[in-house]
Amino acid sequence: MNDVFAVIMAGGSGTRFWPLSRSVWPKQFLSLAHEQDSLLQQTVRRLAGIVDNEHILVVTSARHADATRAQLPELPPGNVLGEPTGRNTAPCIAWAAAHVSARNPKGVMVVLPADPYIADEPAYRDVLRRAIAAARSAGLVTVGVTPTRPETGYGYVEVGEPLDPGVERVVRFVEKPDLYRAQRFVTSGNFLWNSGMFFFRADAMLAELKAQLPDLHAFARGCAERLASGGDEAAFAAEQYATLTSISIDHGVMEKAKDVRVVRGAFGWYDIGSWTTAYELAIKDEHQNAVLGMVSLIDTQGCYVRGKVDKVIALIGVRDLVVVDTEDALLIMPRERAQDVKRVVEDLKAQKADKLV
Amino acid sequence: MNDVFAVIMAGGSGTRFWPLSRSVWPKQFLSLAHEQDSLLQQTVRRLAGIVDNEHILVVTSARHADATRAQLPELPPGNVLGEPTGRNTAPCIAWAAAHVSARNPKGVMVVLPADPYIADEPAYRDVLRRAIAAARSAGLVTVGVTPTRPETGYGYVEVGEPLDPGVERVVRFVEKPDLYRAQRFVTSGNFLWNSGMFFFRADAMLAELKAQLPDLHAFARGCAERLASGGDEAAFAAEQYATLTSISIDHGVMEKAKDVRVVRGAFGWYDIGSWTTAYELAIKDEHQNAVLGMVSLIDTQGCYVRGKVDKVIALIGVRDLVVVDTEDALLIMPRERAQDVKRVVEDLKAQKADKLV
Repeated sequence: MNDVFAVIMAGGSGTRFWPLSRSVWPKQFLSLAHEQDSLLQQTVRRLAGIVDNEHILVVTSARHADATRAQLPELPPGNVLGEPTGRNTAPCIAWAAAHVSARNPKGVMVVLPADPYIADEPAYRDVLRRAIAAARSAGLVTVGVTPTRPETGYGYVEVGEPLDPGVERVVRFVEKPDLYRAQRFVTSGNFLWNSGMFFFRADAMLAELKAQLPDLHAFARGCAERLASGGDEAAFAAEQYATLTSISIDHGVMEKAKDVRVVRGAFGWYDIGSWTTAYELAIKDEHQNAVLGMVSLIDTQGCYVRGKVDKVIALIGVRDLVVVDTEDALLIMPRERAQDVKRVVEDLKAQKADKLV
Repeated sequence: MNDVFAVIMAGGSGTRFWPLSRSVWPKQFLSLAHEQDSLLQQTVRRLAGIVDNEHILVVTSARHADATRAQLPELPPGNVLGEPTGRNTAPCIAWAAAHVSARNPKGVMVVLPADPYIADEPAYRDVLRRAIAAARSAGLVTVGVTPTRPETGYGYVEVGEPLDPGVERVVRFVEKPDLYRAQRFVTSGNFLWNSGMFFFRADAMLAELKAQLPDLHAFARGCAERLASGGDEAAFAAEQYATLTSISIDHGVMEKAKDVRVVRGAFGWYDIGSWTTAYELAIKDEHQNAVLGMVSLIDTQGCYVRGKVDKVIALIGVRDLVVVDTEDALLIMPRERAQDVKRVVEDLKAQKADKLV
């Protein structure tokens, strides 16, 4: 497994999980269900036995780099790359490809978002192994999740002819569809959810960048040269970063690449997009309440309650509420209003209460 | 006005205002509407110009005596009497009568509960003056509040023949009626709410105690003797208190006394019995929200929100909730469930979380 590297993309901000997530403490640092580990820690620790810790890179924003290192003491501190500014996923992957290439030009990169929730870890790890093997030979591979509903919030991958066992050709990537198309996708059996998980051989990715996004390729080469020669790669990256083409790897590379393959996965994959999803994934009591912290619940059902160990939250006669209590902010709303949390964040900015967002 | 004394009865516990009131910090120490002063402070300060501060006594439980003195620095510390145990209102008034009698045997005692809310202070002060004058001549007087609804939560006073201008004879005291009787009381015009405000000449009260509750009279005489002789009155009271007949002044004296008079009052009198009343009395915004603290309210109506200045409470899409947030406890319930707060207190005791109640 020494040619396998992981690149965890941890650039999120997470307005939707206010007040627990903040601009200084984004979603990936949180545990949103019943686990102890944060989403980021879970993503890293699910790789045990598949990727060595020394081979796991995390790309995050520069201001979250120290907190990221503190959450992941098992990683060498230099494996956490801090982006001076967010430029979408293609520059992030180009940068990581330079680091992998400097260590092993044919290294296989497992590129993972930091914050999905995975319910079936053995199935997930099995899919990772198959996708790694496919990328080692074929160069560019993605994982498509078998859809369980006509979700309009995700992108889709259309699947073509079977190649190796469990590996199929990607016909095309499709952006978030409307409900009618999503329903057709699900019933067709030929469309999978785009999980945002990608598997690249470093040399294959760099070749694609050279063809599709030459400025990112030049940037990666500049980084790799400095890493090889002992030059100041960090200073070079910091200086260049804001000038790079800001584009997703999906648009910038995957949609244009000639030979992309897909491994099907069904491992209970959830994009935890709001407090509603957090509730759905949490362990519930007999009244369908999901509770973290000390509570007194009287005639209360279907609530997601998240407080602190040294404070009691008492609910009387309410149902289907989200209650999230922190040191300096308290949120109360019906579960179905979770998408409106951003309105609070906007309101607080308008109130000049920036330290609360 | 030098024959006028006030006796503020501040023995409450206030489970119904959890989590703001606690066994260590009962209701009378709180401001439940929009005022700065606590209910106790308001009760004392409404007496300005009617009773000298040196003549205002406060009877509270011994464990609240220091906090009471701290809330009322304008009173001589010795004017706060700490009951070693709660024995209802008759022993409390007997004790206060001894203190008043030791200073002026014909002193007029204005006996007031510590925690009603008074909306029309000039009218209230006018009623006090008339009731004081009536008690100075007649001995035992009460104030009856003109009822504005068929309230079943209060006792009533039946009014008889007019005596002096604005003073009528009490026919009888009536305990909390059912709704049918309450409706008849209100339409009759002869029934007033029993406000719990009493006006006694000290000698008249001691004579009634001698006739109706001899042990309380003996206790009062023992206290008065020690106060006159410089003996250890506090030790005597502390020793005797638990043995005294535990009964209300209404049952123990007023209902049996031959000549009790009543002054009618209409001064916006509210017994703040629950968070619901606190909401009703609070100043509200255009969406009928009553707010103390920093908030962000999105699509929210009819809520009573009480937090801290250094913490934001964000509500989205809720209505008619009570939200009270303190350092170590948070309460959320529909306004109509206010009477169930005691169930939380019971639950916390069962959880052995006694420091939270």
